[in-house]
Amino acid sequence: MTNPFELTATDAIKLIGNNKLSRYEWVQSCFERIREKEDLVKAWVYLDEDRALEKAKQLDNENDKSQLGIPFGIKDIIDASNTPTGFGTNFYQNNVPMRDATSVSVAKQSGCIVIGKTVSTELGHRAPGLTTNPHNKDFTPGGSSSGSAAAVASMMAPVCFGTQTTGSVIRPAAYCGVIGYKPSYGDFDKSGILPNSPSIDTLGLMSRSVEDIALFRSILLEEELVSIQKADLSKIKIGFVRTPHWDKTDDSTKEAFEHFLNLLRSDKLNVIDLEIDNLISKSDALHLDISGYEFKRSISHERFNYYDQLSDQLRNGRLNDGYQLTNKNYQLALKDLLILKNQIDAVFDETDLIITPSAPGEALKGLEYTGSPIFNTTWSLNGNPCITLPLFKGKQELPIGCQLVAKFGEDDQLLNYAKAFLEL
Amino acid sequence: MTNPFELTATDAIKLIGNNKLSRYEWVQSCFERIREKEDLVKAWVYLDEDRALEKAKQLDNENDKSQLGIPFGIKDIIDASNTPTGFGTNFYQNNVPMRDATSVSVAKQSGCIVIGKTVSTELGHRAPGLTTNPHNKDFTPGGSSSGSAAAVASMMAPVCFGTQTTGSVIRPAAYCGVIGYKPSYGDFDKSGILPNSPSIDTLGLMSRSVEDIALFRSILLEEELVSIQKADLSKIKIGFVRTPHWDKTDDSTKEAFEHFLNLLRSDKLNVIDLEIDNLISKSDALHLDISGYEFKRSISHERFNYYDQLSDQLRNGRLNDGYQLTNKNYQLALKDLLILKNQIDAVFDETDLIITPSAPGEALKGLEYTGSPIFNTTWSLNGNPCITLPLFKGKQELPIGCQLVAKFGEDDQLLNYAKAFLEL
Repeated sequence: MTNPFELTATDAIKLIGNNKLSRYEWVQSCFERIREKEDLVKAWVYLDEDRALEKAKQLDNENDKSQLGIPFGIKDIIDASNTPTGFGTNFYQNNVPMRDATSVSVAKQSGCIVIGKTVSTELGHRAPGLTTNPHNKDFTPGGSSSGSAAAVASMMAPVCFGTQTTGSVIRPAAYCGVIGYKPSYGDFDKSGILPNSPSIDTLGLMSRSVEDIALFRSILLEEELVSIQKADLSKIKIGFVRTPHWDKTDDSTKEAFEHFLNLLRSDKLNVIDLEIDNLISKSDALHLDISGYEFKRSISHERFNYYDQLSDQLRNGRLNDGYQLTNKNYQLALKDLLILKNQIDAVFDETDLIITPSAPGEALKGLEYTGSPIFNTTWSLNGNPCITLPLFKGKQELPIGCQLVAKFGEDDQLLNYAKAFLEL
Repeated sequence: MTNPFELTATDAIKLIGNNKLSRYEWVQSCFERIREKEDLVKAWVYLDEDRALEKAKQLDNENDKSQLGIPFGIKDIIDASNTPTGFGTNFYQNNVPMRDATSVSVAKQSGCIVIGKTVSTELGHRAPGLTTNPHNKDFTPGGSSSGSAAAVASMMAPVCFGTQTTGSVIRPAAYCGVIGYKPSYGDFDKSGILPNSPSIDTLGLMSRSVEDIALFRSILLEEELVSIQKADLSKIKIGFVRTPHWDKTDDSTKEAFEHFLNLLRSDKLNVIDLEIDNLISKSDALHLDISGYEFKRSISHERFNYYDQLSDQLRNGRLNDGYQLTNKNYQLALKDLLILKNQIDAVFDETDLIITPSAPGEALKGLEYTGSPIFNTTWSLNGNPCITLPLFKGKQELPIGCQLVAKFGEDDQLLNYAKAFLEL
């Protein structure tokens, strides 16, 4: 018999519907798994076992099938009411918000159960927490949504919330070998999430099945579930994007993708090499300006009151980028972004789906550096929906993610494509 | 001798620079004024006299001229650290954030001194607090930034922060007879402000001089002060916009504006009647959709946990608007907004400045209804900088505001025009 913690949310809900599993057993099983793995993985900054089990028991007793009972984890830059929310710092350890972030609130309203808060890098920037990669503890899990990716990968929770300003959902999900999804910009509300760069910040999801992504998408949108339809990949145009960063990509990743392309083409899929280097370079430059300027502003309280406690990575990184711009130049950058978004949209007039690596390689050794977002910047900045699928393994036996990117607003279709890729 | 509380911030700072006034005397004088007027005006939900006086004394002792010592008030949907922040509700009375909103943080960094939190309508929507109009206690001060407008009008503070999603800075400022300023969207950061409709929400300022607006703009942007230059109004094209709502405008306001137009024309100013009714009607419709959808999402925690304690105005107002839209239609509305913004921009190719009423009349009798934002919706939605000037009086001896609107990004120029209008 499968342990409940191994189940996807979609499968567990079916069992609960048939009275073959209780919400209490499911939540309890996740906490047992956490006790087994947490010493090594260190995915959590706060665990809420008593309240979670009590809630599960209550929902079991009420027996309302619309109350799903899905255990989930929340990145620690997302507010949860009456729950410590430290933003990946020591100096906010006593921060206990009164409000749930909207995402947390609507999930709870559907009967989802908070397991706890997952490790975030410092203020959602780069300085890592203690989380290790579940596939090998000597390697980074990626960041900034480090704990969420590691918790889902080690089956401590079926679904966790992350956020992405550059590559903070897609990269850790890829490094940890799970599915990571960043929706079209604006689809998921951000009330109660610590802002990093509000023009770009996006709430995302980690899970172990595409169906669970679709399920949580419907929960967060408060709309009916759009069930996954298997897409016919032979009918679509697929663009493979190497980016100007292909030479910084490691051999395992290059080989995995070249091999995969050959496979797709031998399956008679229509895959072209899509060269949009100039758009990607423009995106890199604009992202640096906009995210720098907005981050500097967003964390004003921290830079004025806790500067000494901020990491060098933060002070010399995005915060320093922010000091290079005037407000006038920032507004000009936002104007350029509108033009760029149109250009990126136009790319999808010729291509239904872009395939590109999720990261420039396997997870890196050591926990100091959460890895490079060079394959994510363009899609974060332009707001396109992306998903990473754990399709390959590298030389170090660590996962390599394949990133699918769709046109802005085509999230449902992206999930259909993702399902078809998983079943190739 | 002028009482310190009567001074504009700009004038008081000069006196402090010449050692003719201490920051302590200034802050003390504001609190004396508050003691005199607050029973009637009810502008504040929280006053912070001890900490304010202590800070003023400390800054006087340090004698660093860059530490301005300006006392200011903060609308109660804006977080201030270790300060109750109730969002205009009873159920958040015990909410004490750990972080300052960015606006509060950068103001403090320049040595500005928090006087307290000013009354906001419920969650920044319509249900009013207890504030009265300082010109006549039987009339509304307007909303949602009710306390901020009333505090500045009754000289309890030289400057207060407000926020605007529809007309929540311009209208209360006009009703209370002070200067209200809403910058270009995106100029002022919103970290730590309760979101209402994030695509539209804008932090704004109330003051009794244009120079104080320019001063606080520079403080909030962390940039050098751009001093007011007197504009030559005879060199610019001015468009007077009656809007499709002219027939809902009261006679006092119509007469004041028609008289003013004649005066401007007799001064040989180039004032044309600008008919952009279709753009304004489009704005009204789009604003309803976007603000409804985003507000419903932003206040998810409140609608799920405090629904019984929310006002009928909120439940049947913007919250209900929000339930009418799907995510797909919301994203389409945002697309339409981009087109509309271009069309509004194009209007300013032919006009340097728009003049239009700040509200459809004087403040209304009774405190139940904070008034209509029909003259503000277009500029809030499209992000144009606006300022209201207390140029006229109506039949009830209450102030009538003249709203000036400039092209997106032309905030410095708008302040120059405003100064010239005040000196006509």
